[in-house]
Parts: sequence; structure tokens; C-alpha cells
Amino acid sequence: MAEKVVIIGGGAAGPKTAAKLRRENPDIKIDLYTQEEIISYSACGLPYYIENIIQNAETLIIRTVEDFQKQNIDIHIKQQCIGVNTDEKTALFLDLISGNKYEVNYDILVIATGAIPVLPSISNINLKNIFTLRTVQDGINIKNKMKQSKRAVLLGGGYISIEVLEALVQNNLQVTLIEKNSHILKMFDEDFAQMITDYIIGKNPGQVTILTNEEVIAFTGNDKGEVKSVITVSGKEIDTDFVVLGTGVKPNTDFLQGSGIRLGIYNSIKVDRTLKTSKQGVYAVGDCTDNYNLVTNRYTWVPMGSTANKEGRCAAINIAGGSCFFDGILNSTITKYFNLTISIIGISYREAQELGFQPEFAIVTKRDKAGYMPNTGTMTLKLIADKNTQTILGIQGIGEGDVNQRINTVIPAILSKTKLESFMNLDLPYSPPYSPAIDPVLNAAQIIYHKING
Amino acid sequence: MAEKVVIIGGGAAGPKTAAKLRRENPDIKIDLYTQEEIISYSACGLPYYIENIIQNAETLIIRTVEDFQKQNIDIHIKQQCIGVNTDEKTALFLDLISGNKYEVNYDILVIATGAIPVLPSISNINLKNIFTLRTVQDGINIKNKMKQSKRAVLLGGGYISIEVLEALVQNNLQVTLIEKNSHILKMFDEDFAQMITDYIIGKNPGQVTILTNEEVIAFTGNDKGEVKSVITVSGKEIDTDFVVLGTGVKPNTDFLQGSGIRLGIYNSIKVDRTLKTSKQGVYAVGDCTDNYNLVTNRYTWVPMGSTANKEGRCAAINIAGGSCFFDGILNSTITKYFNLTISIIGISYREAQELGFQPEFAIVTKRDKAGYMPNTGTMTLKLIADKNTQTILGIQGIGEGDVNQRINTVIPAILSKTKLESFMNLDLPYSPPYSPAIDPVLNAAQIIYHKING
Repeated sequence: MAEKVVIIGGGAAGPKTAAKLRRENPDIKIDLYTQEEIISYSACGLPYYIENIIQNAETLIIRTVEDFQKQNIDIHIKQQCIGVNTDEKTALFLDLISGNKYEVNYDILVIATGAIPVLPSISNINLKNIFTLRTVQDGINIKNKMKQSKRAVLLGGGYISIEVLEALVQNNLQVTLIEKNSHILKMFDEDFAQMITDYIIGKNPGQVTILTNEEVIAFTGNDKGEVKSVITVSGKEIDTDFVVLGTGVKPNTDFLQGSGIRLGIYNSIKVDRTLKTSKQGVYAVGDCTDNYNLVTNRYTWVPMGSTANKEGRCAAINIAGGSCFFDGILNSTITKYFNLTISIIGISYREAQELGFQPEFAIVTKRDKAGYMPNTGTMTLKLIADKNTQTILGIQGIGEGDVNQRINTVIPAILSKTKLESFMNLDLPYSPPYSPAIDPVLNAAQIIYHKING
Repeated sequence: MAEKVVIIGGGAAGPKTAAKLRRENPDIKIDLYTQEEIISYSACGLPYYIENIIQNAETLIIRTVEDFQKQNIDIHIKQQCIGVNTDEKTALFLDLISGNKYEVNYDILVIATGAIPVLPSISNINLKNIFTLRTVQDGINIKNKMKQSKRAVLLGGGYISIEVLEALVQNNLQVTLIEKNSHILKMFDEDFAQMITDYIIGKNPGQVTILTNEEVIAFTGNDKGEVKSVITVSGKEIDTDFVVLGTGVKPNTDFLQGSGIRLGIYNSIKVDRTLKTSKQGVYAVGDCTDNYNLVTNRYTWVPMGSTANKEGRCAAINIAGGSCFFDGILNSTITKYFNLTISIIGISYREAQELGFQPEFAIVTKRDKAGYMPNTGTMTLKLIADKNTQTILGIQGIGEGDVNQRINTVIPAILSKTKLESFMNLDLPYSPPYSPAIDPVLNAAQIIYHKING
């Protein structure tokens, strides 16, 4: 049994590992190091803090340093890991307050350093009021600036940009979103990305501009060193009060160079299904690890707070001598833009084609309740199945109706590779306030089944 | 290929069969006979019509007689089937208008006669204002009487009684519900039934009385032949303006005596997975058929509008020469009492014990969204799994939070017998407006897994 566990990283996965490990083992020594000042917070809630749905940033903190100390977990804030020596079982830290470097011994090391924003190569990117959104402090900075602003530019059209867009629109800003691909939300098929774009534009006409196939090549600044405008490759100059970079993230693993810990796709840390790395005594959890995609049977990297929590829990059980397996993911994601739920699970039709599946699809637009009930909402679902195996590869769903109920119904069927023939007559509970007599997701499965089988 | 298809029954399954068959085959002759005047309606919506969430009963009609005639489907209303001769391939009908009897030939017969209320043996049950709720006319009668009433008594504590209770409470009636078992909603475990009871009583204090372990032995009437009170076995006399009998239903199959068509459990019609009965050329669909329970691997009888629609669709495909299998059900049911969602899928802990499983359970009470989001709702889930197979046997869920999303997530896992070990780390999509980072249903699975495996 290990005597001393050192955890690096204070976002979601590290604190989860610490808390679960303490519940599993009241005696083991646990030290958690983080570069930040705040630990154990929900980064996924930051857009709602900016929007002011959540008034205080402290609300996003799940457990404080004091909470951990009560559990006899020592938290070391503002301490950056700059190297790991797996032969000596030591981690090298830089004290961000004093500037001193020092070594820490471990029996078990848990790396939970998360992901960090990728800064694009754009001239003058170091101007003031060009933000990324990853930490609580980032959120506070953006919210403060937003309150004094009328215009903003968002770079990148991923989920975080959509969530920040809602926040800024709700706070009456004029926003331009710039996406280099032909459509936003590139994990979706183009038809769905277009429907989402149309909803965003239609919801607040004149307030939001979405530029696709467009790239920012430079920022201009004023004499205070603040960003003043963005210049695009097509020659546009867009005046703005601030910029939020939603141009992607990468695993925070540069400090592992030379440690011998094996890295995988996009330099994420390779872990097995027990969350062990290639080096004895070293675990990795959360956004810094690779993920096994159970649909494509390939390794991928999809940093998600839910996965981070599950991995942290699982690693803690294993460190404590128990047995927990984290087999992989299904690329499950969901967000919203005001009342529109936006979700994709598994792979898109396009990706299925690229990966060599023989995909078929069905698109249905249906009400979420019996048609005669009040307050029904509509939804559009795109179900993707493989002709050869007759199993479901993915689903995309958007709508003001109850999309997430349908999405969640498909997920275990993707995992278990349930045949369409069984799935399309699945006994979903029916009552007029909850669904039509035949649920929309079953309609979609019936259509694909008959497209494939006649 | 059949030339003439005769369908008996005009509720959900019969009209669904007719409509789907016409889409599959534009030429085949289709005749549908029903005892009622109205066809193709949603009986499940009747409580919401009584409540006046739906103002007009016509809203519940999915397709009218004229709609069917446009599709070249002949509808014969007020015609009761009183016998079937499968050797001669004829059905004997009674014209409820003229009183004449006549025979009809068929190539294919589809029996969709549904279920009818069971009238308990209670003295004076034929008094006026003692209603059952099955047809649109029943709904109209109850609603009309309710508008002039201050008090009502409901017999039986099943789903329909709970739905009618909501309707009457919303319309300011004083209601007494009388249940002969020790708790209402007997398919639930007693703990959940009690929580539901507490919610009902607490929601409108003083307005609802629930009497369990109680039976009605007689009704008393006034000089107009209208019910005036109910007398219970324990000696209570409860004054009332009307009574609704929610004392169960039975398959409407008495007319098949002597036909040679094999009946199964509770005299429901035995069908195979293609919806064929034991007699060549005769199909049966909907509430009059038996059901195969895919959890218990036993035949059961669970009349549900959703199953009726699926069976009707499937039978039509098979009659048209295609191939569709309806493998069975999972006892999936859901309803609501005002804001409380009430659902059970599969089997309860008690039923699992009775059937010889080795059940384990977990109960969790959780919020449906990230705790820091506004407008979260709570839910209580009880997940049941089998220790031997480590698969899920059932789930019960109640709450004002989004219960149905979690319930639906479990259903495909029950169908596919997914191991708890896989299910508990299922990649459900996470975003603060939709769920906590680890979904409540996964919390429940984790707890059971560790109860079983340490």
C-alpha cells in the first residue's frame, strides 16, 4: 500500500481523486499541488457566470482549500510542476510566489494538469483584452470587461464560443464570431451546423454576425496597449472592445518531456483502463489523458469535465487497492444556446464515411410530447447507423424540445451495439406529458432500419 | 398476398394498423369495425381533457373517419364483433344501431379490441354517476359531472386514478381515493409508493384523502338513482357527488370463446413476435394481446398505448409482406402528479425477490443539473440490479427534476443486459444546464456496483 500520494492539478480530476481517495482510505497521505489560487471548481460553469445567471464566481467552487484541509488533504496553491523523475519517484516544482524550485517525493503520482488554451499565431496577440476562458480568473476578467463594453469578437466556433456568445448577447453586446472552417461546431454534420447557425442569427437579428471560412491575421491596438480591432485574411477590419479566443486547447503535458511517461494523441498522456500511465506508480486523470473511443475503436482526445470526474473517481479506487475500469468514451457532448439544446454523441455521418463505415441516416423533426398537449417543443434528430452491423454510430439533436432525453436513450444502445431491429421497438415509457406514443428517437430508428432493409 | 383485411377495434392499435398498412400497400382492401362512434383517439390523454388542460375532446382524435375514407379505408362504427370462425374465415358482427347480426369474410383478420374496465362486485354499482374511464364518451361524462360537483371518490390507486386525481384537485374538488392494497401504485416498492403518497397529500393539504387497506362494499343512492355515498368494509360512509372506478381492466376477448384462437395470461390473446395468433391469417395487436417481459422472461399483460402503436405498425408491415419483430416489453411506465414525475421500468426490488433474483438496490436523491445552476429540480432514483449477472433489473424514479431523462438512459441498458461495470462509467453528455458532472443515474449504478463487489 502506498504511503504518500502526490496529485498535480487542481481543476476537476485532481480534487475528485483526492476526495474519493480520502473516503476510500482515511490514513494515506495526500498532497495536491496546483498552479492556480482556486481549486476544485467547475470550469464548465464559467460561461453562466459571465452571463450572470450565476452572480458570484465562488458559487462555482465545489470544495475549498479549507474543506480539503478538514479531510486531511494538503493543498499547495501557486505551485507549478516543471518535471517528473519516475526513477527517483520525485516531482520538481516551481513556487510561483517565491520563485524557488524544490523536489517532492511520492509513492504514487497522479497527473491531473488538464488542458491549456492554444494561442493562435496572430500578430499582436499579447494586447490587453484578448482573453482565453479556462480558469476562474479568466471568467472574472471577461465578465468585468464585458460590463464596460458594447462589442466583442469571438474566435472559433466550438462549444465554449457558443456558450460565451449567449452570455454576451444576453448582456446586449454586438458580437462577431469568426470561424476558419466552412461551418461552426465542426463535429456536427454541415446540415445541423447550418440549422444551429440559422437559430443563432434568427434569435437576435442584427446583434450577432457569424463569419465562416474566415481567419484573423492580426489585432490592432490603441495607445494603452488594448485591442482595438481584428483584421481578417479577407481584408475586413472589425472594431471591438475585447476578444475571446475559443481556438482550442491542448493537453498540459509539456513538463513531462524527458520523464519517460508515454504520450499519445495530441501529446495527451497514454493511460490504460485503470488510469495507469506507462510508468509504474504514475496515474493520470482528466483533460491531460487520452481517451479510447468505443465507437471508432481508436484513441482520441476529448477533454470533458464528466470524464475527468469519472477518471478521478476510478483512479482513486484503484490507488486504494480496489478495482475500477474506465473503458472509454462515446464523444458525448451537449450545450445550449438560449432555449436551443445542441448535442452530438458518437460520430457524425461525415466522420462515419471518412472512417470507412457504411453509414445510413435518418432525420426526423417531431414534437417532444403528445401533439395535443400544451407547451410541446420540437426537436430535430439525425440518427446515424452502420449498414453492415445494423448498429447505431451516433446521434445529433437540436431543438427547443426535450432533446437530451432522446440523446440519452441512444447512448447505452451505442455502447452495447444494440441492433436497430431491437432498438426501434424499445419499450420507452409513454404518457402524453412526456412523449408521443412512438418516441421520436424510435421513429428515426424505424426509418433507418427500413432504409437499410427495405 | 391477402386481398381483404378486416380490423376489429378502433382505439389505438387498430387504426395504426390500418394507416400503416395503407402506406405499405395502396391496393389492399381494408375494413375497420368498432363498437364506438369515435375512432383513433388517445385514451391516455383523457385525464388531461377532464382537467381542462385540453379544452375539446376532439383534440384527442388522431385521425377521423373522413381521414380514413380519404385513404380508402372503410370504417364501420357502432359494430360489435361477437364471434370469429377461423375455419370459414368469417367474423360475426352485431349492428348496435339496427340490432342485426351479419357475417364478414376476411383473408386477414386483425383483432385490436383493446381492454375493458373490470367492474368490482359492489352493491348498487349501477347507480348513476359511477364512471369508468376508457372511451372519449367516458371522459366527456366525467368532465360534465365534475363541473357541477364538489366531492368525488376514486376507487383504486393505479396510474389512471392518479391522473384523474390531479384533474379533480386542479378543479377544486374534495377527493377521497380508496385503495385495497397497503399502498397505492402497487408496481412500486412500498418506500416509493409512500413518497408519492406523501407528495400527493402534502401538495394540497386537506383536499385529498387516501385510504389504503380499505375496500368499498356498497354504494348508496338518492331517489334519482344517483350515487350519494360509498360504504367501506371498515364501516366508513363517504358522501360523494360521483365515483370513478379505477379498479383495473381486462382484455376484451370474451367474444373469442370457441374460436380456437389461443388465449394466454388473463385471457389476453397469445401472439408471437410477428403479432400472429395461433390461427392462420389472424393477427392481434394492442391492449388485447399478451406481452413478453424481456426482464423476467415471462409472459405478462401490460396494456399500453405505446405498445399498441408499435404492435399495430409491426403487424401492418408483416401483413404487407415485410418483416417486423416485436420482441417484448420492459414494463415501462411513466406518469405525473402535477410537477412530480412518477416512473418505473422493469421490476421492483420486491418483485425481483419474489421472482428468485438476487437483487441489490441503491437509492439516490440528487439535483438534475449542476448544483450552482438556477431552477434545479431534485429526483429520487431507486436502481435495482441482480447480484449474479451484475445487470440492471429495473429503476423507479420520482421527482420534480428531470426524472424521465434518467429513466430513459437505463432502458436500453436493461434491454441489452449491460454490465454495471460498463454502465456506471457511461459517457453521458455533461453541461451544467443539463446534469451534474456525474449523472445521478451513474451515481446509483456506482453505489450498487460497490455494494455487490466491495
